[in-house]
Amino acid sequence: MTDNMSLAQGRNYLAIPGPSVIPDAVLQAMHRPSPNIYAGELVEMMPDLTADLRRVARTRHEVAIYIANGHGAWEAALSNVLVPGETVLAPASGRFTHGWAEMAERLGVKVELIDFGPSDPWDMDRIAQALRADADHRIKAVLAVHVDTSSSIRNDIPALRALLDDLNHPALLMADCIASLGCDRFEMDDWGVDVMVTACQKGLMTPAGMSFVFFNDRAKAKRAAMPRVSAYWDWLPRSEPDWFYQYFGGTAPTHHLYGLRAALDLIHAEGIEHVWTRHARLARAVWAACEKWAEGRALHLNVGDRAHRSHAVTALRLTGGRGTPLRSYTERHLGLTLGIGLGMADEESCFRLGHMGHLNGHMVMGLLGGIETAMAALEIPRGSGALEAAAAVLAG
Amino acid sequence: MTDNMSLAQGRNYLAIPGPSVIPDAVLQAMHRPSPNIYAGELVEMMPDLTADLRRVARTRHEVAIYIANGHGAWEAALSNVLVPGETVLAPASGRFTHGWAEMAERLGVKVELIDFGPSDPWDMDRIAQALRADADHRIKAVLAVHVDTSSSIRNDIPALRALLDDLNHPALLMADCIASLGCDRFEMDDWGVDVMVTACQKGLMTPAGMSFVFFNDRAKAKRAAMPRVSAYWDWLPRSEPDWFYQYFGGTAPTHHLYGLRAALDLIHAEGIEHVWTRHARLARAVWAACEKWAEGRALHLNVGDRAHRSHAVTALRLTGGRGTPLRSYTERHLGLTLGIGLGMADEESCFRLGHMGHLNGHMVMGLLGGIETAMAALEIPRGSGALEAAAAVLAG
Amino acid sequence: MTDNMSLAQGRNYLAIPGPSVIPDAVLQAMHRPSPNIYAGELVEMMPDLTADLRRVARTRHEVAIYIANGHGAWEAALSNVLVPGETVLAPASGRFTHGWAEMAERLGVKVELIDFGPSDPWDMDRIAQALRADADHRIKAVLAVHVDTSSSIRNDIPALRALLDDLNHPALLMADCIASLGCDRFEMDDWGVDVMVTACQKGLMTPAGMSFVFFNDRAKAKRAAMPRVSAYWDWLPRSEPDWFYQYFGGTAPTHHLYGLRAALDLIHAEGIEHVWTRHARLARAVWAACEKWAEGRALHLNVGDRAHRSHAVTALRLTGGRGTPLRSYTERHLGLTLGIGLGMADEESCFRLGHMGHLNGHMVMGLLGGIETAMAALEIPRGSGALEAAAAVLAG
Amino acid sequence: MTDNMSLAQGRNYLAIPGPSVIPDAVLQAMHRPSPNIYAGELVEMMPDLTADLRRVARTRHEVAIYIANGHGAWEAALSNVLVPGETVLAPASGRFTHGWAEMAERLGVKVELIDFGPSDPWDMDRIAQALRADADHRIKAVLAVHVDTSSSIRNDIPALRALLDDLNHPALLMADCIASLGCDRFEMDDWGVDVMVTACQKGLMTPAGMSFVFFNDRAKAKRAAMPRVSAYWDWLPRSEPDWFYQYFGGTAPTHHLYGLRAALDLIHAEGIEHVWTRHARLARAVWAACEKWAEGRALHLNVGDRAHRSHAVTALRLTGGRGTPLRSYTERHLGLTLGIGLGMADEESCFRLGHMGHLNGHMVMGLLGGIETAMAALEIPRGSGALEAAAAVLAG
Repeated sequence: MTDNMSLAQGRNYLAIPGPSVIPDAVLQAMHRPSPNIYAGELVEMMPDLTADLRRVARTRHEVAIYIANGHGAWEAALSNVLVPGETVLAPASGRFTHGWAEMAERLGVKVELIDFGPSDPWDMDRIAQALRADADHRIKAVLAVHVDTSSSIRNDIPALRALLDDLNHPALLMADCIASLGCDRFEMDDWGVDVMVTACQKGLMTPAGMSFVFFNDRAKAKRAAMPRVSAYWDWLPRSEPDWFYQYFGGTAPTHHLYGLRAALDLIHAEGIEHVWTRHARLARAVWAACEKWAEGRALHLNVGDRAHRSHAVTALRLTGGRGTPLRSYTERHLGLTLGIGLGMADEESCFRLGHMGHLNGHMVMGLLGGIETAMAALEIPRGSGALEAAAAVLAG
Repeated sequence: MTDNMSLAQGRNYLAIPGPSVIPDAVLQAMHRPSPNIYAGELVEMMPDLTADLRRVARTRHEVAIYIANGHGAWEAALSNVLVPGETVLAPASGRFTHGWAEMAERLGVKVELIDFGPSDPWDMDRIAQALRADADHRIKAVLAVHVDTSSSIRNDIPALRALLDDLNHPALLMADCIASLGCDRFEMDDWGVDVMVTACQKGLMTPAGMSFVFFNDRAKAKRAAMPRVSAYWDWLPRSEPDWFYQYFGGTAPTHHLYGLRAALDLIHAEGIEHVWTRHARLARAVWAACEKWAEGRALHLNVGDRAHRSHAVTALRLTGGRGTPLRSYTERHLGLTLGIGLGMADEESCFRLGHMGHLNGHMVMGLLGGIETAMAALEIPRGSGALEAAAAVLAG
Repeated sequence: MTDNMSLAQGRNYLAIPGPSVIPDAVLQAMHRPSPNIYAGELVEMMPDLTADLRRVARTRHEVAIYIANGHGAWEAALSNVLVPGETVLAPASGRFTHGWAEMAERLGVKVELIDFGPSDPWDMDRIAQALRADADHRIKAVLAVHVDTSSSIRNDIPALRALLDDLNHPALLMADCIASLGCDRFEMDDWGVDVMVTACQKGLMTPAGMSFVFFNDRAKAKRAAMPRVSAYWDWLPRSEPDWFYQYFGGTAPTHHLYGLRAALDLIHAEGIEHVWTRHARLARAVWAACEKWAEGRALHLNVGDRAHRSHAVTALRLTGGRGTPLRSYTERHLGLTLGIGLGMADEESCFRLGHMGHLNGHMVMGLLGGIETAMAALEIPRGSGALEAAAAVLAG
Repeated sequence: MTDNMSLAQGRNYLAIPGPSVIPDAVLQAMHRPSPNIYAGELVEMMPDLTADLRRVARTRHEVAIYIANGHGAWEAALSNVLVPGETVLAPASGRFTHGWAEMAERLGVKVELIDFGPSDPWDMDRIAQALRADADHRIKAVLAVHVDTSSSIRNDIPALRALLDDLNHPALLMADCIASLGCDRFEMDDWGVDVMVTACQKGLMTPAGMSFVFFNDRAKAKRAAMPRVSAYWDWLPRSEPDWFYQYFGGTAPTHHLYGLRAALDLIHAEGIEHVWTRHARLARAVWAACEKWAEGRALHLNVGDRAHRSHAVTALRLTGGRGTPLRSYTERHLGLTLGIGLGMADEESCFRLGHMGHLNGHMVMGLLGGIETAMAALEIPRGSGALEAAAAVLAG
């Protein structure tokens, strides 16, 4: 396994935009025998667990937990509020809105997609135009990806809410926070989000395999009016269970629940506001280095405007198809795994940095230092002083 | 937590009919950082993993892996082969056929249910009658629960196949092996099963959170003719993926895959035939003790005929509502957790023993010895020599 | 690894007289990165840890922690209070007193050994005789093994103290509680023990590798008068450190300390009095079964008098060299490992049961049930009703 | 625990000069039940384990394993070859030779110490002078610390051997490789080392608690001539055991053995030559950064001559007592723990970096990036380009 010419023998650092680095406390909590699933500790911990999930999402409303990945939560959310034949609006900045929209189509839902390409955030005027054109309110929901993991664009959810309100458009505002929750500021209730979808393996720092749908009273009302919702996706018993097994529509994901419990303890011990501040600072350090490197005209940040950059992931391009060699170098020679490019025109040139979740100052410097090393080894032109610029940001 | 009058301080033994006891090798394999989900070890291990799953199911056909519990796999299986408005036949011995049938109804499928009650296996004549009455083949599938976890009845799948063949009935034979796979003999191809559903937390000895649908060419043909299948449940990309993420319809259940890998290694190191033999022997030891206790006329085995008893779970009744006190005693005083009664008329009287998966001779004797102790403490009439009878079976 | 004819695939149960079964909480606590050894959590936890160790030993005096096994603690204890050429009295019931005495000799100490053989406790008259004969108090210490792990004899420490007091003999009373601490009642201060030696892998439920010497003011005074004590064994800085590293004479046993912390939490959550009561009850259950089996005249308990039987270990003999086949059977066929015979005339006939530490009712029944099974398989004559007798004891 | 103004929430990085970072494979291997200590897997793995230890030490001679820390191994080594009243020569570069010499004195051995201070390697002329003055060979051994963990000086063992040979001095050459084994090149047999002492928690990447003494035929001969060696320290039965327990002079350190097994597998999979090369390259990267920073005249490397710098640890000084504030900053703000200064005149100014064992490129860049950040935050003058200089070394 070890490349004998490499300096990789040591801790592997998975710096992809999810799964993120799992805290030791989470893995420890999951290394245990199966608990009883009818009574006892596991059953008793659920009220606090769901309360603490809601605290992260900044909502006093409901949450349904799914044994599923983020795609499952997408389908769950759609299944509870959309009847085949209904329409959703899907403003896409990057790849994942397309994916969610395709899922809607597979459920028989019509999709009106506005594609802003892989590098631009929503253009609110074009969205306004689409909503205004929908005078008879065929559009029942807007699929709003908060942070697109492929492009690292962060879209402006409050602005979208304001637009819907201004236009008196009743469409549900459905947010995908899979890449942002626990990283970028997100305020479900204050921002007027009706349905929010997320998963456990990014900002929530738990091994992949669990996802969540949060929903408010407007969404509940739509659910109540549905002719049929599949038993597995139905969020009703999951959010208001009479029996423990209804939380999960069957057998509980026992070990994931213990892992999530430990992760939520870490988040709330730090404080969610501080979690956001930390991610913001670490992201600015990443940007500072990347912007310096970019002076060499080989490296480019996918998102030009800092205001639209995610605090959890950064998409980059190295001209001449040098993204893949760079990733290969850091993995084989330094023990550092970077994310592949996704959904871009030239995927060999692209790569992504995950900087989400269980992340601190030395990790970010190790990530950036690894890239500097690889660029040096591959003789990629770059501005100097990148690492010192990042350190200066961290030093505040 | 510890009851100060108790003898419970020690290893907890969870002897419920799932989740089963997880081997240390499985937990060790899961205690690791998240792997890359785009390349490397995890990606490379999939071909062998799916091959080894098929070996356990005794099929050369397809398998789709779901991040979901058994209920999710139920819905997945139904979603791939049944159009709303079609009909299934559901012969029910115990509770779980009802659950699967309700799921079908929630998908708009019509259900023809034959209820054999909580203590009797299928009556093949009544099933034959129902199939014969279906001259125009409205019945598209038969929902056949191999082992019902609530009643501990094991139904005769080969006999059902023979019946369908005799009657030339084209309905798909869909088997639920959630409680039987890796415990009771099951031969998917030889028995002519078209679709089989199972989950990881019983005979497969992996923490709950992953499930599986196996299907053959007949089932694939039905899938191909479906007007629409939801993206998450669609088994097609999961069984024939072009890309790794299609195995899981999105992010992989990273840690569960490592756990399952370790569990399959244990199964195949032992040999699946030997796994079945072991379960058979251990089950007979349990029955030997229970039949002795039953001489005291307080304890009753739910299933009278040994030929219809599961090798993985045993449902019992203690007259006078003494099932719950017995369970309470073993848990609080001995560190032994028994399964609650499910789906029975008098649930307080009922309880169940799980004897599945990672299970050996001393564990079964500890389980039975715990029950003997509790019956003594609660002064429940019982035949003598139960434990020695069990030991005699184990001694062969 | 798995014997294909066996029923062993399942949890291995190590029922030898140490190492004992390690609680999950202990293993979890040890699965962590190395901590800083100069400041922080590890340093700060020491005062409570040593206080909680003293609570288990029932002493308000000193404790020194050694990275060493029990033999190391033996040597440590001897090294702090005995000058080459001095004499100790060693009343031996079983093998381990011999071992300790040999260690003393290797340090240049003279040993006066009284051998009571492998099956008898101390004869206080013979000890009295030896002490009376020592009019000029050449005997500086008595090496008193509380429970001998090979013979399972428990000796009467308070009686020995009374004897020394009666005779006004100033010899230090040095107790070996390696096999008894946290199992059998032991009261260091009330019983007038001057030095006590123990280790972590039995009643303290922590992986082998750490041991302890407790000592009171009389022992300290003797240490103060020593011409020389080796730096590693010197208990002075270990018990009264100015710096953290002095606790361990160098680098701390980081992970063992976390494990021990978790184990002490379990003990004190249960309460040491209850721990003793639990061991007593479980031991009586073991005896009840063994005494029944003994009616068949093949099995013999090594210690006839219940008052002199350890609550942590039971030494047995199966005539005709059948101890080894029995152990072999339980290990290969049932997943149950019994202890070998040690220090007996016919070691093939002998075997031992560990019933110490993290142990509860179903475990004891599994242990005994495994032996019943093996005796049945090997057609060893035995009284009937052994398991029911044990269950009756547990049922109270 | 979390400082709310910090960026520390993430993986802690313990970059002290031991304990080093433990590989996941080692922790996984240790998270298991206690094995049997009389037969089976643990017993069977010993021959390969000791062979693989010898491969790391580059010797065909003997090894004794001790449950003890490095100080214990020091005492063990001394105890096997030195009689009270004999003399050793102790050339000291840094603190640890003093410690070993004190241990010798506590055993009654006379010490002739040559102190080269905290920043200079051995002066071979002064050592030669001392040996020449010893015409009657009172000096029985030379205590030679290969790498001093406090000063980060690496001494020239082959030169010392050559000197002894040139002078025909029969003193045993006893090397302390606690901080160097598995990091800096060490060739026991080729270099003519007679006794070598090391421990498991640095280059051997195993939790602290086990240590080792290697010895050759000359040392064995001296041992054979000893009037008395304590039973615990006697290396004879440990190196040539008739029974498994003799390897450890009693109960085996069960879990440490599994951990060490996993660590040795990592070392030999990489290849010991490559391990040394990796450490050399990573050390040069550290030096490159430190030398750049040193241009600011606040930071100083303790060892001026690269030829005498350890590849495993680097001792540094920040004028004005700023070592402690720097360490405090990296720990509280970045999750990075640096080593304290040891044995220096102004300990508040000093600090040390561990770069040993399970260590790769991104970790070193994270370590250096953390220091750059802290120096920026604390406004410590420093040369620029330090991190890029380190990256250039790594890039080769």
